[in-house]
Amino acid sequence: AQTYKVAVLPGDGIGPEVMAEALRVLDAVEKKHGVTFQRTHANVGGAGIDNEGKALPDTTVNICKASDAILFGSVGGPKWETLPPDEQPERGALLPLRKIFGLYANLRPAIIFPSLTGASSLKEEVISGGFNILVIRELTGGIYFSQPKGIDGVGAARVGVDTMRYSVPEIERITHVAFQAAMKRDKKVCSIDKANVLSTSVLWREIVTTIAKEYPEVELSHMYVDNAAMQLVKWPKQFDVILCENMFGDILSDEAAMLTGSLGMLPSASLAEGTFGMYEPSGGSAPDIAGQGIANPIAQILSMGMMLKFSFGMIEAADAIDKAVATVLDKGYRTRDIFQNIAGEKLVNTKEMGDAIIAAL
Amino acid sequence: AQTYKVAVLPGDGIGPEVMAEALRVLDAVEKKHGVTFQRTHANVGGAGIDNEGKALPDTTVNICKASDAILFGSVGGPKWETLPPDEQPERGALLPLRKIFGLYANLRPAIIFPSLTGASSLKEEVISGGFNILVIRELTGGIYFSQPKGIDGVGAARVGVDTMRYSVPEIERITHVAFQAAMKRDKKVCSIDKANVLSTSVLWREIVTTIAKEYPEVELSHMYVDNAAMQLVKWPKQFDVILCENMFGDILSDEAAMLTGSLGMLPSASLAEGTFGMYEPSGGSAPDIAGQGIANPIAQILSMGMMLKFSFGMIEAADAIDKAVATVLDKGYRTRDIFQNIAGEKLVNTKEMGDAIIAAL
Ligand SMILES: CC(C)[C@H](C(=O)O)[C@@H](O)C(=O)O
Ligand SMILES: CC(C)[C@H](C(=O)O)[C@@H](O)C(=O)O
Repeated sequence: AQTYKVAVLPGDGIGPEVMAEALRVLDAVEKKHGVTFQRTHANVGGAGIDNEGKALPDTTVNICKASDAILFGSVGGPKWETLPPDEQPERGALLPLRKIFGLYANLRPAIIFPSLTGASSLKEEVISGGFNILVIRELTGGIYFSQPKGIDGVGAARVGVDTMRYSVPEIERITHVAFQAAMKRDKKVCSIDKANVLSTSVLWREIVTTIAKEYPEVELSHMYVDNAAMQLVKWPKQFDVILCENMFGDILSDEAAMLTGSLGMLPSASLAEGTFGMYEPSGGSAPDIAGQGIANPIAQILSMGMMLKFSFGMIEAADAIDKAVATVLDKGYRTRDIFQNIAGEKLVNTKEMGDAIIAAL
Repeated sequence: AQTYKVAVLPGDGIGPEVMAEALRVLDAVEKKHGVTFQRTHANVGGAGIDNEGKALPDTTVNICKASDAILFGSVGGPKWETLPPDEQPERGALLPLRKIFGLYANLRPAIIFPSLTGASSLKEEVISGGFNILVIRELTGGIYFSQPKGIDGVGAARVGVDTMRYSVPEIERITHVAFQAAMKRDKKVCSIDKANVLSTSVLWREIVTTIAKEYPEVELSHMYVDNAAMQLVKWPKQFDVILCENMFGDILSDEAAMLTGSLGMLPSASLAEGTFGMYEPSGGSAPDIAGQGIANPIAQILSMGMMLKFSFGMIEAADAIDKAVATVLDKGYRTRDIFQNIAGEKLVNTKEMGDAIIAAL
């Protein structure tokens, strides 16, 4: 039988709790599909700092290198907030992981589940029937990683510098990801830039327009990032796939996620060329509710589903997980974060939500 | 009697129509306060391109230089959208004006008028009672203006580059603007950055923290830009003054403006050191409704009010304009863009709205 190697990095806060449920669902997938997921646990984030002295320990990197995919929980918490930014759990783990493994394509779905429209801060008339946006964010280029970057000079003469740089191949490959995703969805790509101000955006727009010709069925539009921040609020349903460079994607994917009102429900995938990828919930480590067994495991479970799909090609198994989650929500199962206190809801804890999803599978 | 010189740049689309109303209100202010506003009209944007060959003609720059303030309408339209970005009405007029006149401090209020909460796409419970955010955006630095910027190389080997740079004095002066504004409001400043990734943000956060000590009554918080994009959607009332570098301010001020649902109501000021400033509505030139006499002149009138306050120190006159607008809205006067078809509303055109505001003055 097929064996896949998964590096399991639960991290901090609610990370270990929701990871436990995702792994139980993975057990169910193993049984159902006759495959083996060989799992190796490793420290990351605050757990890395506390146990091995840094947010991304070398042992963790090596375990990831020996694996076919990374299943990531969440990192961070007040305990480590006073460290220098470079050493903090989020930045100190995520940026090096992205760079080391060439995770250039970040897929962040922002979905309103029809049964959960009440959780959005948007009006019913703006979101009725739900919406389904896929933000595709370039993840290893732009102002995050380009040089020069730093603070020069001393005292009042200091100057801070960051550089935003994009090459043609960097733009091409992420554009293909966006158009290929759109082909399987509503066949619309909205490319975000600031081409009226940024040279990187002028090049971005040109290359995206050229690549688009290879996908004649897909409708391409361009939007300035400031306008996109407005349009998301005004009428999110106008979007299908949103294609962004790294920093614009950081901002807009978070805005879109919050518009759904269900941050605890949203998975994400960060893909390398080939089949390697890292999968993590969009929300944070929620230290305020950690250890109580009440966190929502759905984002972690859906992230695991994305792993099945993108790293292991198990489309059917991934779809079954998406469906099981939808079923369980339709049946009224709610963890505290999505409980609205209306008729038909059943308040459950982390483990009970896991049980329900496994049963629905 | 006191005489002030105002450069009047109506621009394109609805610009001239709403400007006409602002100037009629200015006439009323002249009479009431015994001052003279000597006005010189000049071309800008598409009108500049069509009449004098560029978006910001030299004659216009000279007229502005000979004035105490610039009252700006709005620019842009489909006619000029195929020009190179540099030459287009928006970019070609606004960026040089900001640079030439050192307009480093952009003030963009995002206000929900209590009588207009229905226009927001946010739920009633999120915005009940309205909100009042002032975004202070640094406007002459950062990735908009720093070098190197451009596209190097040829063909597939091309690389686009932009540079984000901030010096200590640049950060200091905009920080003072934010804290001084907060002193006259709810005494809270939320400074936006991406200090976990950007070096400019690390310097930004340090300098803002230092300057804050000079304003012990004001509460300072820091927020990452991605989180800010979320928090604005989630609970806009948490904000008083939001302090941003140039690009973050571009994105977040537009997001905040759209959350109010009343883009046609929001003024803005772009201030130089001293008393010189440029005042313009936050919305666009709305070419689709231009020439019909139905545009909402309130943003232009409130922008003129900001001019009275910031460039001419006429606080009382400015407050009277704000109050007149509130009165007229309370009485139910609505241009088409804010008409909700509910009891007590009177649908009016551009000129009738101007009349009502002048009467209320
Ligand atoms: C923690 C931070 C460096 C990271 C980013 O900005 O990419 C986070 O906000 C994210 O979006 O994954
Ligand atoms: C037109 C453009 C250059 C400008 C900007 O990005 O500053 C506009 O979006 C604004 O916010 O005034």
